[in-house]
Amino acid sequence: MCELLGMSANVPTDICFSFTGLMQRGGKTGPHRDGWGIAFYEGGGCRMFHDPVPSAESEIARLVQRYAIKSQIVISHIRRANRGRVCLENTHPFGRELWGRPWAFAHNGQLRGVKRLPLSGYRPIGSTDSEHAFCWLLGQIRERFPQPPRQPADLWRYVYTLSRELGERGVFNYLLSDARHLYAHCSSELSWLTRRAPFGQARLTDVDMTVDFQQETTPNDIVTIVATRPLTTNEAWTVMPPGALTLFSAGTSMVTFAD
Amino acid sequence: MCELLGMSANVPTDICFSFTGLMQRGGKTGPHRDGWGIAFYEGGGCRMFHDPVPSAESEIARLVQRYAIKSQIVISHIRRANRGRVCLENTHPFGRELWGRPWAFAHNGQLRGVKRLPLSGYRPIGSTDSEHAFCWLLGQIRERFPQPPRQPADLWRYVYTLSRELGERGVFNYLLSDARHLYAHCSSELSWLTRRAPFGQARLTDVDMTVDFQQETTPNDIVTIVATRPLTTNEAWTVMPPGALTLFSAGTSMVTFAD
Repeated sequence: MCELLGMSANVPTDICFSFTGLMQRGGKTGPHRDGWGIAFYEGGGCRMFHDPVPSAESEIARLVQRYAIKSQIVISHIRRANRGRVCLENTHPFGRELWGRPWAFAHNGQLRGVKRLPLSGYRPIGSTDSEHAFCWLLGQIRERFPQPPRQPADLWRYVYTLSRELGERGVFNYLLSDARHLYAHCSSELSWLTRRAPFGQARLTDVDMTVDFQQETTPNDIVTIVATRPLTTNEAWTVMPPGALTLFSAGTSMVTFAD
Repeated sequence: MCELLGMSANVPTDICFSFTGLMQRGGKTGPHRDGWGIAFYEGGGCRMFHDPVPSAESEIARLVQRYAIKSQIVISHIRRANRGRVCLENTHPFGRELWGRPWAFAHNGQLRGVKRLPLSGYRPIGSTDSEHAFCWLLGQIRERFPQPPRQPADLWRYVYTLSRELGERGVFNYLLSDARHLYAHCSSELSWLTRRAPFGQARLTDVDMTVDFQQETTPNDIVTIVATRPLTTNEAWTVMPPGALTLFSAGTSMVTFAD
């Protein structure tokens, strides 16, 4: 089991508060000692930080907490290895370019026999099931849509179809971004929460820390946080049903595909 | 004009000393205020740090200096923008995957009309000439060699041929890695230096700092540094001739292609 954390916001927003909660699970309040990573979308670009050491002990994690990088889409992952040894190339999120856009993907779960799926266009650098699944997914999208489809919904529906196909092989909770939207797929466990005015206080589950978002935000800010398990104790999280894919844009849930 | 810095080593080695020299040129002793980036190869993976702010003022640069990430191949770049605005996606090095290996590329120079070259397989995320040239180069390699060639020299010669072709368009000093070798191409300005036992002292050009490598190394270490301009005042740098491509492996120069 790994832990996922994602963010979608309508203005560049830092994820320090939620990230602080998540990092505790990387070797402190949780057993996810096998590395961590985070992708920040900024403008058209994406920057990633990866560290194969436990997040609770990571110099780079401390930098990310302190430096308050502001972003409209974030994907983060802390890892408890089940397949693939602990090393840099097996650390999520994975990144590839398609249509001149940086895509990022982080996965929680295991997929039986996924490495038998033939690949086109993208090949894994590491040895995880997850990266193989991502390469397959992106290769399929690229074959179907050599150019971005005119109707973005055609892409979303296709991602949902592919996700169902992969989901039949096991546990497939994931966060994905194409630099436009945040895709959250729930196979067994994923929750989200939208914060908007009037903002209140939030209390972290994993560490004794409270933040008053009214002090930190403007009345127009809208921010959604997606996480494997709720990160705060006093807010109303939406628990996603198994098999659902929800797309977020500018802090808001736009559309959900489900059976 | 930008500044390039590369390293090839036979054991994982940190680049703190040379990086400290380079970073001064990013807004302090040099005019390269438009961001910086660095790629570290570790095992089969590659991690990159990018920052569109001047390196001399960058929090992330300070982390990289302090944290002493050890690597066998490093590519770094500090930017003075001539084409493409200052933003994350225009910050070198650029990265793409080919054959399941992470490739990285950083460029110093300008290439006339390079954006008219048709692309296959890879598309730029940002708007620089440099990323377009990299996408073209990698697409050409991928078309010629859908799988890695059995004789690596076939690849090297092809990279040299492509580099000559691009070099005709202007200034094309670059550092490239395919996770196996460091490729250094000199179009107008690039120098390198190999350090091995018996190690001595080195004095940086850009800041009052001396290091005694005898204290920092074992007798078996071999490390080559490649830089736009020599970084130290008291060592014998090899100045590359225009048009040359030199490949480095495990700290040593292996082969040079030249007219």
